[in-house]
Amino acid sequence: MAYYAFQHFTVRFPPEHQHVAHVEINRPDKMNAFFEAMWLELSQIFTQLSTDSSARAIVLSGAGDRAFTTGLDVKAASQGLLSGDAATDPARKAAHLRRHIASFQDCISAVERCEKPVVVAMHGFSLGLAIDLSTAADVRVCARNVRFAVKEVDIGIAADVGTLSRLPKVVGHYGWVKEVALTAREFGADEALRVGFVNAVYDTREATIVAALELAAYMATKSPVAVQGTKEILNWSRDHSVQDGLRYTTVWNSAALQTQDMSAALMSGLQKRTPTFEKL
Amino acid sequence: MAYYAFQHFTVRFPPEHQHVAHVEINRPDKMNAFFEAMWLELSQIFTQLSTDSSARAIVLSGAGDRAFTTGLDVKAASQGLLSGDAATDPARKAAHLRRHIASFQDCISAVERCEKPVVVAMHGFSLGLAIDLSTAADVRVCARNVRFAVKEVDIGIAADVGTLSRLPKVVGHYGWVKEVALTAREFGADEALRVGFVNAVYDTREATIVAALELAAYMATKSPVAVQGTKEILNWSRDHSVQDGLRYTTVWNSAALQTQDMSAALMSGLQKRTPTFEKL
Amino acid sequence: MAYYAFQHFTVRFPPEHQHVAHVEINRPDKMNAFFEAMWLELSQIFTQLSTDSSARAIVLSGAGDRAFTTGLDVKAASQGLLSGDAATDPARKAAHLRRHIASFQDCISAVERCEKPVVVAMHGFSLGLAIDLSTAADVRVCARNVRFAVKEVDIGIAADVGTLSRLPKVVGHYGWVKEVALTAREFGADEALRVGFVNAVYDTREATIVAALELAAYMATKSPVAVQGTKEILNWSRDHSVQDGLRYTTVWNSAALQTQDMSAALMSGLQKRTPTFEKL
Amino acid sequence: MAYYAFQHFTVRFPPEHQHVAHVEINRPDKMNAFFEAMWLELSQIFTQLSTDSSARAIVLSGAGDRAFTTGLDVKAASQGLLSGDAATDPARKAAHLRRHIASFQDCISAVERCEKPVVVAMHGFSLGLAIDLSTAADVRVCARNVRFAVKEVDIGIAADVGTLSRLPKVVGHYGWVKEVALTAREFGADEALRVGFVNAVYDTREATIVAALELAAYMATKSPVAVQGTKEILNWSRDHSVQDGLRYTTVWNSAALQTQDMSAALMSGLQKRTPTFEKL
Amino acid sequence: MAYYAFQHFTVRFPPEHQHVAHVEINRPDKMNAFFEAMWLELSQIFTQLSTDSSARAIVLSGAGDRAFTTGLDVKAASQGLLSGDAATDPARKAAHLRRHIASFQDCISAVERCEKPVVVAMHGFSLGLAIDLSTAADVRVCARNVRFAVKEVDIGIAADVGTLSRLPKVVGHYGWVKEVALTAREFGADEALRVGFVNAVYDTREATIVAALELAAYMATKSPVAVQGTKEILNWSRDHSVQDGLRYTTVWNSAALQTQDMSAALMSGLQKRTPTFEKL
Amino acid sequence: MAYYAFQHFTVRFPPEHQHVAHVEINRPDKMNAFFEAMWLELSQIFTQLSTDSSARAIVLSGAGDRAFTTGLDVKAASQGLLSGDAATDPARKAAHLRRHIASFQDCISAVERCEKPVVVAMHGFSLGLAIDLSTAADVRVCARNVRFAVKEVDIGIAADVGTLSRLPKVVGHYGWVKEVALTAREFGADEALRVGFVNAVYDTREATIVAALELAAYMATKSPVAVQGTKEILNWSRDHSVQDGLRYTTVWNSAALQTQDMSAALMSGLQKRTPTFEKL
Repeated sequence: MAYYAFQHFTVRFPPEHQHVAHVEINRPDKMNAFFEAMWLELSQIFTQLSTDSSARAIVLSGAGDRAFTTGLDVKAASQGLLSGDAATDPARKAAHLRRHIASFQDCISAVERCEKPVVVAMHGFSLGLAIDLSTAADVRVCARNVRFAVKEVDIGIAADVGTLSRLPKVVGHYGWVKEVALTAREFGADEALRVGFVNAVYDTREATIVAALELAAYMATKSPVAVQGTKEILNWSRDHSVQDGLRYTTVWNSAALQTQDMSAALMSGLQKRTPTFEKL
Repeated sequence: MAYYAFQHFTVRFPPEHQHVAHVEINRPDKMNAFFEAMWLELSQIFTQLSTDSSARAIVLSGAGDRAFTTGLDVKAASQGLLSGDAATDPARKAAHLRRHIASFQDCISAVERCEKPVVVAMHGFSLGLAIDLSTAADVRVCARNVRFAVKEVDIGIAADVGTLSRLPKVVGHYGWVKEVALTAREFGADEALRVGFVNAVYDTREATIVAALELAAYMATKSPVAVQGTKEILNWSRDHSVQDGLRYTTVWNSAALQTQDMSAALMSGLQKRTPTFEKL
Repeated sequence: MAYYAFQHFTVRFPPEHQHVAHVEINRPDKMNAFFEAMWLELSQIFTQLSTDSSARAIVLSGAGDRAFTTGLDVKAASQGLLSGDAATDPARKAAHLRRHIASFQDCISAVERCEKPVVVAMHGFSLGLAIDLSTAADVRVCARNVRFAVKEVDIGIAADVGTLSRLPKVVGHYGWVKEVALTAREFGADEALRVGFVNAVYDTREATIVAALELAAYMATKSPVAVQGTKEILNWSRDHSVQDGLRYTTVWNSAALQTQDMSAALMSGLQKRTPTFEKL
Repeated sequence: MAYYAFQHFTVRFPPEHQHVAHVEINRPDKMNAFFEAMWLELSQIFTQLSTDSSARAIVLSGAGDRAFTTGLDVKAASQGLLSGDAATDPARKAAHLRRHIASFQDCISAVERCEKPVVVAMHGFSLGLAIDLSTAADVRVCARNVRFAVKEVDIGIAADVGTLSRLPKVVGHYGWVKEVALTAREFGADEALRVGFVNAVYDTREATIVAALELAAYMATKSPVAVQGTKEILNWSRDHSVQDGLRYTTVWNSAALQTQDMSAALMSGLQKRTPTFEKL
Repeated sequence: MAYYAFQHFTVRFPPEHQHVAHVEINRPDKMNAFFEAMWLELSQIFTQLSTDSSARAIVLSGAGDRAFTTGLDVKAASQGLLSGDAATDPARKAAHLRRHIASFQDCISAVERCEKPVVVAMHGFSLGLAIDLSTAADVRVCARNVRFAVKEVDIGIAADVGTLSRLPKVVGHYGWVKEVALTAREFGADEALRVGFVNAVYDTREATIVAALELAAYMATKSPVAVQGTKEILNWSRDHSVQDGLRYTTVWNSAALQTQDMSAALMSGLQKRTPTFEKL
Repeated sequence: MAYYAFQHFTVRFPPEHQHVAHVEINRPDKMNAFFEAMWLELSQIFTQLSTDSSARAIVLSGAGDRAFTTGLDVKAASQGLLSGDAATDPARKAAHLRRHIASFQDCISAVERCEKPVVVAMHGFSLGLAIDLSTAADVRVCARNVRFAVKEVDIGIAADVGTLSRLPKVVGHYGWVKEVALTAREFGADEALRVGFVNAVYDTREATIVAALELAAYMATKSPVAVQGTKEILNWSRDHSVQDGLRYTTVWNSAALQTQDMSAALMSGLQKRTPTFEKL
């Protein structure tokens, strides 16, 4: 599927940054709030980029001045999911909900499964799903005006598309995670930086996106064999013991170390020039 | 068992904070040092609060000016445990010690198992068991005069009722955890705040408890279905892979999303008023 | 094997610090770059110290002004491993690489397996293997002039002797780990301190080593039963659920609590004197 | 997608067995050997049946007298995968192979993920992929003339779409699994029955399919809430500790026990009649 | 609590078998069907026996000719649990059900947690809870007339107090487990023996109990340090990797090998007499 | 180290079986009982064979008519370990015991870590360590006169070099494992065959060894890439979830599928001749 065919997202390959894809949530009039068709699109985009050799690193941002995303479009969601469910048996409703949540989670996890690194640039309202989505990415940066919140308890539910599983593994300060998840209170750029939720803060939305693109572009200059292996092994290690992490690395690298990128990288290192790597 | 019947703890429901229980360790003349009867009581209290629908959030603090708790009452402990053990066979002693430690751990873990969020407010000496106990809670705050230490190596043992398992999952800075656990050195409020052991520091014991109560009270205004689900899923996720965390969340929310709290929360959100939630 | 027999390392027991071993990487003319014989020696040294009762805590540093270590001696490595492999079948090459990586990892893990706490003092260039090695230790400190980098992607590979498995468990800020591992960019002492990669920063190489020795010496004054139990339980807990951590602690302490160090520690605590502990 | 639209499979709902779907591999002239389009179809079919309320239990069999399936169509596979890969860098080839294997595995796992129980009826040659496929199902039965083999080592590879992960969890006799996997030797119906690979043996292909349909039909008379919960919890428990299995069951049944099927089942039990259950 | 104080169980120490406790479910007029008070009693009994040094091995059987137990007393259960629940919010009902199931599971798990080996002797109807209960024990034997069934799907639910988590780890034949759990069909003594659900079959209820007592008595002649360690390590190993099993064993035996039972056992072995072991 | 240099083992490469190594425990006058030097030798042998390309499959048997091995040489052991330990502090004794057990386990695990399949041929007394050792191997066969026992409880200890962790994963009948481990009773060839502890029974020691050699020789005719991958993936899968098993397989085979053995195997299959595979 061609990238221009996506309705609620724009995907471009900025000419000034080789091998970088820039994905933008594009529903600014609704502050980029998500409904089901959107997370299905999101999943398709990241699945496609995962094996598109034009992209070696990806930036995700939100269109419009006001919000990265305000999260779930609650109105759309409530019309869809629950009212559409004719079942009256709570066990059958539960079965339908399980299918629905699992499918939703799977779409968000496409960002994590994507073989290329993903940098998320956030600004303005970045609520609920914004946290789920950005914790599935690799690096988070934000604008000074960002307003984050793990908003779900404010609509009577526990967050269920990733925040509660990933945020505590993204941020070391577990008491802080508990506090923001149990209160749904907002937090801003400085606090996000201090606890390690974001890597850097920039003055404006534009500056944030530029910085994200530059970071992605820098990653894209490195060997894609090395970069994609690094992302995968880090994610595997997060979920396994050190021993299992080491073993997986061994098996992974038993193929990866046979790459020609090693000599390309070493050679260009000696020759002080930028190496070129075959597509992957 | 009525709450006033506990000997070494006071349990009250402050009228100014709806649905908040305030548990206080009440042995100030011994700086709230613990002996066996006390951790058994502690366990009973948190087990009872776990299903008491009057409580939606809990604060734990220590009575008296000098200490949250100095930890294990070593004198009482040494009279009890080891001198009371007539066994001379080291394997049999080990069996008795296993039963003893497991029972002690289980009492402290009652704080973690409690379905409601627990905020711990610490001041003054907060040694040894103070760390075990507070890492089993959800949020930690402290007074400026607090003096923390993972004190156990100073009495010739490795901490064994939770600190060594929970502290590294509460604080992201693993080298710091190693240092304070291997040296038993004291650390104060600023250091605790910097490494993320506590969420906030207040000027006095009183201010700390007030702030903890307010935080708990704020959590208690939220849907108990959402809050209790959030606590449970966060704790499960800490001990599982992201994939297992997501799946557990799916199954959990397949029942929880059927709650009436969702529409109550949404409606009161639209109407800019505080929602009321059925007891749980 | 006598400690003086090691070629690329010096091992000394500084007389001013009882029970402390000081291991120094000693190939300063090559900025302490590693080749295979060196990591085999490293492993022997830490395996031997692990059960040498003269050592209760260990410091690891690098000789020479310029570098703790610049990591793998790429020239030596490329002559060895890949050029020496006559196999042309990629599957057979992979088998050889697996054996090689696994053996290399096992050598580095000797630092983690060592029963005594290990403090690493770093200065100057501390690249690649420096990160693998130091994350296998317990506490990291550094000099102001340190220049760290997870350098591996710059030579076309994913780091494979520990960094990708251990660094995210040493530092809570996962986005930062992703960034430095995916870009190979340098970071200095301040950043290392801020994210919790090191516990402290000192002005010079000498001051760093002195501070490391003093920290180790302080650990060495504590009960070795308590200290070694604490290291082991912390490492086990990192890789297991809290429940499994608690159970392991129970079984461990069922023997350890029978130690005479408890009464020695308590007694000397009452008598305000430094306890003496039997060798271990 | 309508079931008749599948090219290499037939899907029918036998009128004599309510709520049973019968899926048949339909490439008898090639002894039901698989190529890529076929496992993609297989996955679509089982994904569709998973949420198709007409099906409460499923039978999978192979058309033609000679084989359930001889496994991978090696000729088709070798034309596709390896010859089609222009990459010469072994690390890049490895990346392509990983994507290919993961996608293939995911298709086979659709049988396991399918929410309804799957009974596999095998006869004649049932080699390689036959084992991968049938171990992803719930119950295996076979005809007397069946000829099983974990055939992969005979084509120079380790089985990689499930057999090596699932067969040891399906059959308790681990030494037997090792033997048949390391030798690729054939085994027949009696041996398969003795080690517990199949639940029953029937005289002919037809008798086997009839028996499988009857077993599936019997399962389909039971509450779908109960049956689907049982399948899911059994699969979860296989991969988790007993403690985690119990907890998952608790959370699952907290919704499922609210079903009306319980009273329907109890009532019809008392009244000695077959209960009717709402669709799921 | 004295053992005679239990209402629905008898606990005796048969004089002819030293150190053996015989627990009998004693509600024969209702075919030993369980209601809540009974599983609470069961838990108390096994918790008490766990640390009662008079008991070194335990037999569990059912009174009356007709049944070991027919499982849950559905009538009592339906009056209790669901009708007693005034909540109408499905999420709140789910919370109550979770507490109820978790408490029920915990009672059954008391058999597994009991430090002494438990042999279950079954006869007649042994349905539903009979399977949950007996899989939490160590060894199962039965009378020829036994009628087993994983009965739960027949009452519209997935079994939730242990069968689905433990049965697949007790019996290697996973397809058989799936079949009996998904159909609720009965199976008898021969089938139970063939698949390894029971260790032996005896002609009558009496003969079964006698054999169970003799087996328990034989275990009770062995070193309790060795026997209880063996039970614990086997249960731990079931839920962990071989590597974690080995490590746990190491730590366990570091205390246990210091027992005097080793020399007592060796000495009496040389002297061809039955050793006597200190109580545990 | 040359294979003839081993003192208590003979290692030969029978000329009639290409690529097969035959290791024999060679202390027949003591019924092949083990003392420490022997398990150190055993470990060296299997570590060496693991990477010796002359060996593609290995047989392990015992010299002399009477025993495969009677297990630990208790006399030698008791002189060594415990009497040699001057420590009186139970915690220090425990530390020494941990080191000792861990080192012993590591030696036995060398059989499991060995990259080539290992077939164990047992006869006569095969007690204690015989079970630990043979469960670390891949396939077990035995002579009719074999006398097995998990003997450890008879000397007052829980088995600690592997049996309790591996036997339940080798044999599906968990109740039987519990029984033989808790009673130390003997079992013979028929019972071992019935429960799946051995793959086959032969009339004499000689016939057993011949059969083991032929089985090993048959495995050795297959692609070593395929065979060694199969062993490794099966062992990994035993200790991981199906999902983790599948993923590990994917990564493993991404290198292994690049082997020339695939075309060699396919070609010789078409040409009905035995393929030749490059050494590994």
